[in-house]
Amino acid sequence: MSLLEDLNWRYATKKMNGQPVPQEKVDYITEAARLAPSSSGLQPYRLFVITNKELLEQIKPIAFNQAQITDGSHLLVWAAWDGYTHNSISEVFEKTTALRGIPKEAMDDYKTRLWGLYEPLGTEWHAAHAAKQAYISFGLAIAAAAEQKVDATPMEGFDNKALDELLHLNEKGLRSVVILPLGFREEAGDWLVNLKKYRTPTDEFVTEIK
Amino acid sequence: MSLLEDLNWRYATKKMNGQPVPQEKVDYITEAARLAPSSSGLQPYRLFVITNKELLEQIKPIAFNQAQITDGSHLLVWAAWDGYTHNSISEVFEKTTALRGIPKEAMDDYKTRLWGLYEPLGTEWHAAHAAKQAYISFGLAIAAAAEQKVDATPMEGFDNKALDELLHLNEKGLRSVVILPLGFREEAGDWLVNLKKYRTPTDEFVTEIK
Repeated sequence: MSLLEDLNWRYATKKMNGQPVPQEKVDYITEAARLAPSSSGLQPYRLFVITNKELLEQIKPIAFNQAQITDGSHLLVWAAWDGYTHNSISEVFEKTTALRGIPKEAMDDYKTRLWGLYEPLGTEWHAAHAAKQAYISFGLAIAAAAEQKVDATPMEGFDNKALDELLHLNEKGLRSVVILPLGFREEAGDWLVNLKKYRTPTDEFVTEIK
Repeated sequence: MSLLEDLNWRYATKKMNGQPVPQEKVDYITEAARLAPSSSGLQPYRLFVITNKELLEQIKPIAFNQAQITDGSHLLVWAAWDGYTHNSISEVFEKTTALRGIPKEAMDDYKTRLWGLYEPLGTEWHAAHAAKQAYISFGLAIAAAAEQKVDATPMEGFDNKALDELLHLNEKGLRSVVILPLGFREEAGDWLVNLKKYRTPTDEFVTEIK
């Protein structure tokens, strides 16, 4: 199937049947998340894959008791850097140049310009910028799940601070951004599965400037 | 090819060869962008597809003179709503219930709760939230381009305010978020095409909590 067919197949699954998603499919989805592009290639986010049942039970109430948190088999959590530092940028660029077999100074000018832009913008701007990068990765994981015929429910509706605390994200320099339960749809109990997908009509969504 | 193969094939193309991307492929990519999920299904963003050469020449200097702006044949611009209103939310929900053939009151409770959450957060929060939704759509367009073997260069590096002005976005209640030139790679002139793709190693990127 093509990506467009996959995107039409998927929907924000409301009821999952408790069947576990095979590990190879989870690995496929997290790999798509990892391959996502990000601003300057910094990938300022990390991915947590939670299968611990007790922990999922603790997460559910801080996510408006959405049933998919525990009815799905895996919960993916994107957590973004809480800020950029000269060090964290340098580290990524050093690994990049090492992999490419080019001198590590090759990216120095770019790094100086980038840090010159970022530093004055401050930590809250950094964190918001890092979170936005995580959404690209989130989008690609959603596409990968659909390709693999794995159901997924994109979620922003949770108490970020409570989740940060539960997963000890702050001490890792991270903040939770979005979550994605993975599982398989239980069609009989899902009020949304047979309702049509609404999207803004193309002629309203797209404006061509020729 | 699979999504993972497509994501490995793609890269932030630095030099494009000027060949135009066929309209059917552009339509495919914009359709993936349109089908993206968004928070509460609001799709608080619109997509501009620019092929006008004069306009592209004007955009180039406000995007650090990146050559792909004019070497690509199409420039996609995501522009997000500059805020949510009770009206804009109602309009989407009314169209959704109409398409689904259910009473328009069916989403009233949800709308009341959602507006109760959003209203006190203020316009700047709204605009930032809308922009984040656009990044999911951006990610799916990047995946669609790769599937169609169309090269694309994700870009944040431009003067948002200047682009808003040039495209008269403010008067449409929109703000530019990200841009994506589409074209075909010119391998001979592209310094990046043969360099390895660096991504955070899986064991550092993914943390499993079992």
